[in-house]
Amino acid sequence: MLMTTASSQNEHKLANSVGIVTPQTLSIDTPLTLACGATLANYQLVYETYGTLNRDASNAILICHALSGDHHAAGYHHPNDKTPGWWDHYIGPGKAIDTEQFFVVGVNNIGSCRGSTGPASINPATGEAYGPDFPMVTCRDWVNTQAQLADFLGIKQWAAVVGGSLGGMQVQQWAIDFPDRLRHAVIIASSPKLSAQNIAFNEVARQAIMTDPDFHGGRFLKHNTLPKQGLMLARMLGHLTYLSDDLMGEKFGRELRTGSLKYSYDVEFQVESYLRYQGEKFATKSNFDANSYLLMTKALDYFDPASEHGDDLVSTFSHIKAASLVISFTTDWRFSPERSLEIVRALTQAGKRVVYAEVASSHGHDAFLLPNNYYEQVFSAYMKRVAEEVRS
Amino acid sequence: MLMTTASSQNEHKLANSVGIVTPQTLSIDTPLTLACGATLANYQLVYETYGTLNRDASNAILICHALSGDHHAAGYHHPNDKTPGWWDHYIGPGKAIDTEQFFVVGVNNIGSCRGSTGPASINPATGEAYGPDFPMVTCRDWVNTQAQLADFLGIKQWAAVVGGSLGGMQVQQWAIDFPDRLRHAVIIASSPKLSAQNIAFNEVARQAIMTDPDFHGGRFLKHNTLPKQGLMLARMLGHLTYLSDDLMGEKFGRELRTGSLKYSYDVEFQVESYLRYQGEKFATKSNFDANSYLLMTKALDYFDPASEHGDDLVSTFSHIKAASLVISFTTDWRFSPERSLEIVRALTQAGKRVVYAEVASSHGHDAFLLPNNYYEQVFSAYMKRVAEEVRS
Repeated sequence: MLMTTASSQNEHKLANSVGIVTPQTLSIDTPLTLACGATLANYQLVYETYGTLNRDASNAILICHALSGDHHAAGYHHPNDKTPGWWDHYIGPGKAIDTEQFFVVGVNNIGSCRGSTGPASINPATGEAYGPDFPMVTCRDWVNTQAQLADFLGIKQWAAVVGGSLGGMQVQQWAIDFPDRLRHAVIIASSPKLSAQNIAFNEVARQAIMTDPDFHGGRFLKHNTLPKQGLMLARMLGHLTYLSDDLMGEKFGRELRTGSLKYSYDVEFQVESYLRYQGEKFATKSNFDANSYLLMTKALDYFDPASEHGDDLVSTFSHIKAASLVISFTTDWRFSPERSLEIVRALTQAGKRVVYAEVASSHGHDAFLLPNNYYEQVFSAYMKRVAEEVRS
Repeated sequence: MLMTTASSQNEHKLANSVGIVTPQTLSIDTPLTLACGATLANYQLVYETYGTLNRDASNAILICHALSGDHHAAGYHHPNDKTPGWWDHYIGPGKAIDTEQFFVVGVNNIGSCRGSTGPASINPATGEAYGPDFPMVTCRDWVNTQAQLADFLGIKQWAAVVGGSLGGMQVQQWAIDFPDRLRHAVIIASSPKLSAQNIAFNEVARQAIMTDPDFHGGRFLKHNTLPKQGLMLARMLGHLTYLSDDLMGEKFGRELRTGSLKYSYDVEFQVESYLRYQGEKFATKSNFDANSYLLMTKALDYFDPASEHGDDLVSTFSHIKAASLVISFTTDWRFSPERSLEIVRALTQAGKRVVYAEVASSHGHDAFLLPNNYYEQVFSAYMKRVAEEVRS
C-alpha cells in the first residue's frame, strides 16, 4: 500500500486539474432590457477563466451552466477544497476541453445565486434584496450578458460555446442570436424546448416551494426564514427525474435500509434514504436561493426559439453559422435522445454541419456531468478539431 | 337537434349502467392480525354488488381497487349523480364484466377512507380517530379481509378476481394465497413489485404530505386542519406520472393559457393550469384522508410476493391454480409493459395458463380506467369465456 500525505494528495489533485482558480467579478453599467420587458440598470457577472487567451483571441471557449450550476466549472478554490468545479472531468490540461489549448470561461448567470446579480442581491431601488421582485430571465437575456462579458474580455468570436441541459439551450440561443460570434456549438443532453411533461415536473417543484408557508411570497429573508421544505421536495423530485429507472434499480433495487421491513414511515428502502439525504442537503447546506430556483425553472420552460419562427425549427436555425456537436444519453428521459435528434434533424435540414452522438449510459440526465469513455472520446475528438482550426 | 329532458337523460344513463346502487356494510368481529404484527379487534367493510349471484355461487367476480379508488365501481348512487362508479365503462349490462352474467362485488379496502375502517375511523381503544395510529396494511391483509367478505356472501370460489394497478397486485396476492378460491386472475397495468423509481415517486409524495406543517404528525383532525398543500403536491405528482409524455403533448403541448407569455408565476402554460386544478380539487373536494394516502402508497411499496420465495417469481407463482389475463398499456411508464411481461413470463415458466395483451394507448397508466377498443375486445372476449365456464 502506497502511503501518501495530505499535501502530496493535494499536489496530485491540483496537477490533474487547472489548479487553484479565483472567481472574478465584472460590473456592467449598461442597462439591460430583459425579454420580460423589465430593465436592470446595472448588474454583476461572476466568472472564472482557465488557460491563456491567445494573441488573436481565437481560442476562447464559453461554458454555459445548467439549473443549479455556476461559474466554477473546473479546478479548486483553495488547496484543501474537497470537490473541484462541476465539470472538472471534462475541463483541464489534456482533458476534452484542453486548457493547454483553450482559454475557457465559466460564468454564473444573472437570476442565479452564486455571485452574479440575482434575487438575493440588493435592489438599488429599495436598498433591500430583490427577492421575488427580481425579473424573469430567459436564455436570450443570459446570452446577452455573456456577450457583454466576451466584449470585456476582448473575445469577438468564441471558438466554441458549450453547455449541457439548460446550458445547451443557451448554446442554441448563442448560435441563433449571434451567428458570427461562435464557430462551434456543443449542445449536450438538451432540447429545442421543454415538453408539457417537463414543464409539469417544473411546475410541481415550483408549487412545492411557493406553497411552503416559509416562502412568504418570496420575501423569506425578511422573515428570517427559508422555504426548506419546498426546496427539499423540489430537489428530491429533480434528483429522481434526473436519474434513470435503470440506474436506480442498479444502485438501490428494493434494498432495505435495515434488512427487514419496519412498517413505518421511517426510511424503509435505500432509495428513500438517498433521496431524503439529497433533498435535505440541498435545502439546508447548498445555500441555494429559492427565488433563483424558481427563476431557473421558468427559464427552462420559456426556451422555445422556434416559437418566433412559426414553430419551424429549420427556419429558426437557418442563419446559424456555427458547426455543431450534439450529444445525448440513452437513459436520459427528461432530455431524451429523441429531443436531441430534433435539433440534429433541423440543423441538417437547414444545411448546417452537425455531428451527433448518442452515448450509452445508465445515468439518465446526470450522465452529461459524469465520466464515460465514449462520451469523452467523442467530446475530445471534436474539441481537438476545434483546437486544430485555432492553430491553423 | 334532439331535445332531451333531464329525466330522459337520466333514464338513458341509468339504462346503460347497473342503475342505482346502494353501498352495504359488513362488520367483522373476528380479530385480524396484519402483516405488520398489529391486530384490529374488529373492522367494517363497505361494499357494493351488481347482478345476481347464481344458485351455486359460481358467477361471482371481485373487483380490487387502486390507490384512490373505492367500492363504488359501477352505477349511480342516486338518479342525479353526475359521475358513475370508477369502472362503469367496463362493468354493467353487456359490458366486459357483464352484470347479466356475473355477480360483481366492489369493496373498499381497510386503511382507505371511503367507509371501510381506516385512519379516519374511531379507534375503539381511545374513542378518537385512529389517525397515524392506524396500522400499516398490505395487499395480503386486504386479500384476507376480502376473503371474509366472500365467506359472508357465500362465495367459496370467485369466477374471477380483477384489478388494475394496486388492484392487480391484490389479484396476484389472491392467486398466491388462496389458489382454490379463484378460477381466473385478471391483472391489469400492474407489476410483480415496484421499482426503486416507483418507490422514489411515492416517497416524494409522502414527504410532501408529512412535511406539510398542517399534517401535525397525522393528527390534523385534532388540530382542525388538513394538510392540503401536501395532498395537492402529492396528487399533482401522481397525476403527472400517471399520464404519458405523449398524451400531455397531445393534450396541452406548450399551449399558453392566455395566448402570450406573462413572465410571472401565475399559470402560464395550459398544463400548469390542468395540474393545479387536479391537485387543488383532490386536496379540497375529494375529502381523501391524508393518512390513507400515505398507507396506500406504502402498500404499493411493500408488495413483493417473490421476496418470500428467494426473489424467484416462478416459484412464487408455482402453486397458483387460476388462469390469468394480463394486460398492459404501451405508454404506461409507471407500470410499463415490461413489468407485466415479468408476470407473464413467470406464470408461463411455472406452467400456468396465461393470456397477455399489450394495448396501444396514449393515456399512460390511466389507460386502464378509460375506453379503448382493443382493450375492451380483449377484456370482453376473456370474460365471455369465464361466463361460458360458469354456465357449463
